[in-house]
Amino acid sequence: MSEPVERSEATSDATALDSLLRHRYGESRTQEKQAADLPVSDFIESLLGHRSVRAYSDRALPDDILHTIIAAAQSASSSSNLQAWSVVAVQDSARKERLAAYAGNQKHVSSAPLLLVFIADLYRLRSVSVAAGTKGDALDYLESFLVAVIDAALAAQNAVVALESLGLGSCYIGAMRNKPEDVARELALPAEAFAVFGLTIGYPAAEVKTDIKPRLPQDVIVHLEQYQQASPESLARYDTSIHAFQRLQHMPEQDWTELASRRLRGPESLSGRDRLVSALQALGFGLK
Amino acid sequence: MSEPVERSEATSDATALDSLLRHRYGESRTQEKQAADLPVSDFIESLLGHRSVRAYSDRALPDDILHTIIAAAQSASSSSNLQAWSVVAVQDSARKERLAAYAGNQKHVSSAPLLLVFIADLYRLRSVSVAAGTKGDALDYLESFLVAVIDAALAAQNAVVALESLGLGSCYIGAMRNKPEDVARELALPAEAFAVFGLTIGYPAAEVKTDIKPRLPQDVIVHLEQYQQASPESLARYDTSIHAFQRLQHMPEQDWTELASRRLRGPESLSGRDRLVSALQALGFGLK
Repeated sequence: MSEPVERSEATSDATALDSLLRHRYGESRTQEKQAADLPVSDFIESLLGHRSVRAYSDRALPDDILHTIIAAAQSASSSSNLQAWSVVAVQDSARKERLAAYAGNQKHVSSAPLLLVFIADLYRLRSVSVAAGTKGDALDYLESFLVAVIDAALAAQNAVVALESLGLGSCYIGAMRNKPEDVARELALPAEAFAVFGLTIGYPAAEVKTDIKPRLPQDVIVHLEQYQQASPESLARYDTSIHAFQRLQHMPEQDWTELASRRLRGPESLSGRDRLVSALQALGFGLK
Repeated sequence: MSEPVERSEATSDATALDSLLRHRYGESRTQEKQAADLPVSDFIESLLGHRSVRAYSDRALPDDILHTIIAAAQSASSSSNLQAWSVVAVQDSARKERLAAYAGNQKHVSSAPLLLVFIADLYRLRSVSVAAGTKGDALDYLESFLVAVIDAALAAQNAVVALESLGLGSCYIGAMRNKPEDVARELALPAEAFAVFGLTIGYPAAEVKTDIKPRLPQDVIVHLEQYQQASPESLARYDTSIHAFQRLQHMPEQDWTELASRRLRGPESLSGRDRLVSALQALGFGLK
């Protein structure tokens, strides 16, 4: 574990942190803490600077990058050390093309030099249980599926932090859940293995500008001791931040509340994922 | 994004990395890459050094630590920027005691100076949808629950990376799912909000030794292009690593395969989480 680097002795400077927080919270920043008062580290500044990268340069990935990224991913916590996840590393162009087609035709799925598909993997644990002479009946429950999804997500986020520290960029691909059976067939997944999301990885294309996306004000996300309703004022402040970001990105301006509610209008807005339960059952998950 | 630090120009030294990898993979390390060949960064070394911390010192947390940790957490990716998560920060002793009792009486839940409870939060999105004049029918689907769980997990892992960079330690509390309705009542959660897991946070107690827990060999976790069965030899190698770790920790020696299969024997081994579906339904989730 690294040494604590608190503001008083920090090597990072308060101006850089202030700028990062201003980008991360946009207009809401006026309500937030002063950067000079915050405990911080170089790592934290790097985390605050995250942005998704969807356009990649031709630059080849470093040799053995997969080994490093996976070691970081495996270092994340795992529920009861069950390690209920796997990852399929895809570099074959034709396979990436087919997966891109299954995932809403997102171009960066095929153009990224490396696509990691994170798997909620109960198959390995089923095999281990059967070999040990138990049947692993607990695997038939939604709880076990959830353990696998959370294990995969914690691992993936460590992978993202690791790859960004090497100057690489990435983008999560939730659309890998649009057609779970097709993706499973393409990756030769066994029963009780499910592609939770993809992660495209490559060096960022220099000519494509990315920006830090503003998030909801902290008073909306954080609840002290007990849950509190989000105030309409905080949500309105956030819409102001989002508009500023959209202008920066030359995107049409829309309220976050409008974007979110449209995305959640009904089953037809889920790109096929409204049938996730039956897809998971077809893949062998119990979900009891 | 930070500058790439590759091995050839690395400030970190190969010996330290080699030691970290040796601890992370134990006996399996013999089959792994040489540290000197790997692209690496200080961040990655820090990620590799992760261990869970369950015993905390009396040292007070830095002022405004919550603000910093949450800014890092909010900087993680979020599916369609829906930000379908919240966090309840608990410091009140009596509340921590009650939550510890709900979470299998784990002492560190009450002894940690700060407990973050990560919430899969569809309530805020439901409110936004209703206010926008749509009903948010997509929220009734398992997919939306999954989005919320993944958002919460990515955010939490960024929080862990951030707090470790300040010298703090933490431990995930999956047992927060043992009694979801009790936890929801204690935290005054609205409908469609679910405590996915807790995270205990504090400075590590100096007198309690923690060690890096070995993980499965990479050839078990990583699949190139398509899924491959784990080889019995790789699983056996892992059992050797786990035994070495158990000796180091003065724990009884047991195979991982035995530990995992016992943990998954049946519904009775799920500490109440075999009723997760009905608990989630009682909390208002559709899960269609």
